[in-house]
Amino acid sequence: MDREFDVVVLGAGPAGEVAAGRLGEAGLEVALVEAHLIGGECSYYACMPSKALLRPAELAAEVRRVPGLTVTGPDPAAVLARRDEVIHELDDSSQLPWLEQRGVTVVRGFGRLDGERRVRVAGDLLTARRAVVVATGSGAVLPSIPGLSESRPWTNREATTTQTVPASLVVVGGGVVGVELAQVWASLGSRVVVIEGGPRLIAREEEFASEQVEAALREAGIDVHVGAKAVSVERESEVTVELDDGSRVSGSELLVAVGRRPATQDLGLETVGLEPGSSIDVGNDLRSKAHTWLYAIGDVNGRSLLTHMGKYHARLASDSILGKQVEIRSDGALSPRVIFTDPQVAAVGYTLAGAREAGLDVRAVDVGSGANAGGSFVGRNAPGTARLVVDESRRVIVGATFTGAAVAESLHAATIAVIAEVPLPTLWHAVPAFPTRSELWLRLLETYGL
Amino acid sequence: MDREFDVVVLGAGPAGEVAAGRLGEAGLEVALVEAHLIGGECSYYACMPSKALLRPAELAAEVRRVPGLTVTGPDPAAVLARRDEVIHELDDSSQLPWLEQRGVTVVRGFGRLDGERRVRVAGDLLTARRAVVVATGSGAVLPSIPGLSESRPWTNREATTTQTVPASLVVVGGGVVGVELAQVWASLGSRVVVIEGGPRLIAREEEFASEQVEAALREAGIDVHVGAKAVSVERESEVTVELDDGSRVSGSELLVAVGRRPATQDLGLETVGLEPGSSIDVGNDLRSKAHTWLYAIGDVNGRSLLTHMGKYHARLASDSILGKQVEIRSDGALSPRVIFTDPQVAAVGYTLAGAREAGLDVRAVDVGSGANAGGSFVGRNAPGTARLVVDESRRVIVGATFTGAAVAESLHAATIAVIAEVPLPTLWHAVPAFPTRSELWLRLLETYGL
Repeated sequence: MDREFDVVVLGAGPAGEVAAGRLGEAGLEVALVEAHLIGGECSYYACMPSKALLRPAELAAEVRRVPGLTVTGPDPAAVLARRDEVIHELDDSSQLPWLEQRGVTVVRGFGRLDGERRVRVAGDLLTARRAVVVATGSGAVLPSIPGLSESRPWTNREATTTQTVPASLVVVGGGVVGVELAQVWASLGSRVVVIEGGPRLIAREEEFASEQVEAALREAGIDVHVGAKAVSVERESEVTVELDDGSRVSGSELLVAVGRRPATQDLGLETVGLEPGSSIDVGNDLRSKAHTWLYAIGDVNGRSLLTHMGKYHARLASDSILGKQVEIRSDGALSPRVIFTDPQVAAVGYTLAGAREAGLDVRAVDVGSGANAGGSFVGRNAPGTARLVVDESRRVIVGATFTGAAVAESLHAATIAVIAEVPLPTLWHAVPAFPTRSELWLRLLETYGL
Repeated sequence: MDREFDVVVLGAGPAGEVAAGRLGEAGLEVALVEAHLIGGECSYYACMPSKALLRPAELAAEVRRVPGLTVTGPDPAAVLARRDEVIHELDDSSQLPWLEQRGVTVVRGFGRLDGERRVRVAGDLLTARRAVVVATGSGAVLPSIPGLSESRPWTNREATTTQTVPASLVVVGGGVVGVELAQVWASLGSRVVVIEGGPRLIAREEEFASEQVEAALREAGIDVHVGAKAVSVERESEVTVELDDGSRVSGSELLVAVGRRPATQDLGLETVGLEPGSSIDVGNDLRSKAHTWLYAIGDVNGRSLLTHMGKYHARLASDSILGKQVEIRSDGALSPRVIFTDPQVAAVGYTLAGAREAGLDVRAVDVGSGANAGGSFVGRNAPGTARLVVDESRRVIVGATFTGAAVAESLHAATIAVIAEVPLPTLWHAVPAFPTRSELWLRLLETYGL
């Protein structure tokens, strides 16, 4: 059946959902095409289950820091059952009412571009009067290591949805996915090994963040190999990975978490002159540089592979389609980001090294993130650092990193300060309440010398 | 012995300490006069012990919201021991090194003004070349209810430092001190009654905050009497309070928490033409309107009875004494503030009603403070509200209130937005990280209609 819509959105992950919903709310006829689950990778196989799995151990650690309470657990069966609840047992029906209320037509099936403003879903042709929005996300990269693909490796999908706790797990890749899931399974009883080819874990963040997360993984009994590359893999009953230093590690399962690639291989990009498998290059209005009717939002444009940034893209692209002038102001490596390990790592804008590479005249100030009265009560004695990276010429914050117990909710203050370019002398009048850990802002400003 | 200093600071609570330390750091000769404990009311009898006492129950409630963990406690003996550790068993020696490092001379004794730039401490005369800073804080008000003063009532001092859990406690006053300490002792096993003469608890905050805190107190088994005035008190073995509706409540202890008065009764204010017992009226540079050499910071100036505001005053007054132009930008009822009950109440700027009374053209937007993905993991299913009060003419936030589990650290983002007057369209680009509860900002902006 051939149908016409104002907008056809390909992919119903967080970015696609937000775009479709926002356009539907504005009264446009919108088709949202999804081959798998409405809600996308994030809801079922990434952000949501990993946080459900991380939270009990994080909370148990906090209880152990506060005298007067006794905690037992986490109980793996209960944690896995809660994870199943969070991912709705891979059933996406609870996602539908929100879309229905906004008049969005959900089209189940695999959508492919078929020339300008045309999308094929199996035998059906969907034509878009105004725009096609590609929001198909990304998939895990499997590197070409001899024996790897034959060894039934896990990606984030299996590692977040497994129904049993693996006796042991080898994690290849010490980025965000690798460190979060290493900590998950160690907390639930697995023996875990992490192999990172680069010089440090979570290498895009400040070095102190890498050091503190590595220390936490080691303290949890995780065997961390940094600067070690997997050169071959073999599965018998266990999986064995040979490293480039000649050593071998093995486990009952192997998780590969070395990166993501845009899910554009089989999208029909070639029918509109674009390169299948590549990310779709967009301008600051999220519109394809090649076609005015084509938008790409979320992971698929390669700018910032984070759910909240995909949703931000979705708002901007929708507003652009609705005729507003839009321009992205938070982007790429400077996007706000949180790693939900314990210690958490929450950052926005530049790292110190990143700012220097970008040629900025910056100075960093550091204080303990819990080194204040609030830290006596929440995250007591837990290690952590708060760093501001200050542009000396303008006296504004261009980067902030907070590590420590439960720092995730502290990030947004920094994000506002960075985006609004609030001058440091003004921040001095934003008084943190006593005794909250937000008084780290006082210590930072004092250390800076205000 | 007569001595001369650049600055004499009266009172070594948080405000006095910060002023003395900041002036000492700048190289001035500073005397800090304290009759009781360096660290002040906050450190020993207010903010610090109350938070130490509240935290275990708050955390236990959070554990009960997260499947997979089992918690027992709080154990009163362990909680009281931790409280003793937090208040250093009323020994202030740990406060001294910070002052010594800054060259501050601590003078033990009760300081009184004795004319211009002169302070008497027992037989000694301290003369201040530049300024005297009064930072003597406030004391609990005991209202003139027949029988009250003879009934050995507790103020915040006894209620935060008692070595035993009272079997039952009558709390007169449903403001911040009353609700926090009611929740403390109920969580540790006391039978608690709260009597509030006004129409609602924590009456300076949004009505929804009052309702949610009242509901939480009731759920904890606390008997709450709102709109009920104590008319007489009698102590036999128990204390019995008669209310104006004729009913009687009784308990083993009685806490009076109906307000604070500035500690200026016995300060020698009359020697410089000021009124003993009154707050010291200051301008926007924290300087007395009557004398250029006299500053008053913290509770004693009556502007904002909060530790963090006293420390803010201290920074401003110190900078003024050091010759900088200063002007207070966060003040009075608009100051940032947190009530550490569960649910917490964190607010800055105007309430909706307050903004309207001030004649502002405002609109409020409300969302559930935990009604987002982050709320699945932290504060799961706990009630709470996030409200922004938006000045429609300027499209800036002039007030924000967050209630719910662990919202205290979320306040600072709003404080920055309010103080820096960040326009709403700019806030739209400050993307909260997924899945943090800070996504309440998204919901608020969407609800507002951006």
